[in-house]
Amino acid sequence: MRLVVPVSGSDPKTRLAAVLSPTERREFTEAMLADVVAAATAAGHEPEVVSTAPLDCAAPVTVDDRGLDDLVNDLLASTVTDGGGTLAVVMADLPLVTPESIERLLAPDAAVVLAPGLGGGTNAFVCRHPEFGVDYHGASIRDHRRIARDVGASVAEVDSRRLATDIDEPGDLAEVLLHSDGAAADWLAAAGFSLSLTDGRVAVSRE
Amino acid sequence: MRLVVPVSGSDPKTRLAAVLSPTERREFTEAMLADVVAAATAAGHEPEVVSTAPLDCAAPVTVDDRGLDDLVNDLLASTVTDGGGTLAVVMADLPLVTPESIERLLAPDAAVVLAPGLGGGTNAFVCRHPEFGVDYHGASIRDHRRIARDVGASVAEVDSRRLATDIDEPGDLAEVLLHSDGAAADWLAAAGFSLSLTDGRVAVSRE
Repeated sequence: MRLVVPVSGSDPKTRLAAVLSPTERREFTEAMLADVVAAATAAGHEPEVVSTAPLDCAAPVTVDDRGLDDLVNDLLASTVTDGGGTLAVVMADLPLVTPESIERLLAPDAAVVLAPGLGGGTNAFVCRHPEFGVDYHGASIRDHRRIARDVGASVAEVDSRRLATDIDEPGDLAEVLLHSDGAAADWLAAAGFSLSLTDGRVAVSRE
Repeated sequence: MRLVVPVSGSDPKTRLAAVLSPTERREFTEAMLADVVAAATAAGHEPEVVSTAPLDCAAPVTVDDRGLDDLVNDLLASTVTDGGGTLAVVMADLPLVTPESIERLLAPDAAVVLAPGLGGGTNAFVCRHPEFGVDYHGASIRDHRRIARDVGASVAEVDSRRLATDIDEPGDLAEVLLHSDGAAADWLAAAGFSLSLTDGRVAVSRE
């Protein structure tokens, strides 16, 4: 089983630009990646990171500047179609992920296991079927269900809030402070972020 | 084990007022409630609905116009503290809930089981501890963790996207169309809602 964590290392997390400088977005991206790598490692795996640009990480990093679809479909071809193996792909912006959620992703014996993200994305998947491929544009979870069905692959979905919570926008940062004590949460706290209540809703503020 | 579904039946889901009329908000609330009741029933339970005003439901409905904290703390006192039983409370605005997610909520044998909602809420819990109480204001998941710790109760958290996804705002409606084929999804489709893609993000539009 091969577990790959793709990450955008060049100008990451642009939708956080309203609250983080370019340097901070890069540091925060590395902190989230560290949480994902730590969870996968603690679950007994050897995660490989593929980044569009060099970045700091405890796991081996390969630099590959291709788009996500090309990268992942090439990994599927070499690992599953040609290699007869299993590929797991876990996004790098999931700092709530725990060893248990990684284990839950890997538990079903379906040919394709999908972990939906909030908003229609696909935050992680496992593939053992030689004809499955990815298309991350738009509501990718629907496309991935359809692609799996079209190639006759059995499909399971993992019902995990931790795998579903990708951090893209300022409003997402509260989830990190609420539900994690990992590197990304530490980074946010050190950068002055804390939870605040506005109109009864939870948000973050920065000192 | 007693499973209660509290629901606001008077002027429900005001944060959906931008896209739904008062009558529609009431109908949609009943559809979401029907999904929760159906999931709990299919999981082998007999859900009791407590509403602030009369509404249509397949399960027995008790009308009680108290606030949520008073209502639930009174249920805890009568069912757990005095009755020595177990109380499960599942919110009514969780149309993604399945029999499996209800079973996962009820599976841990901890004294308090919490299902966090997105944004810091507590979308469902199970209590077997005589001193636990609720406080739903603000980031209630943090308060409920603290209250459980203060009374010495063992705590488990359920990592479920389906239990975490409460439908409060127009942006939440896409989750219903993406991940459910129940009554709430049917109601949205019949009302003309469908998924749309805006700037690569998933939203809903109405015809």
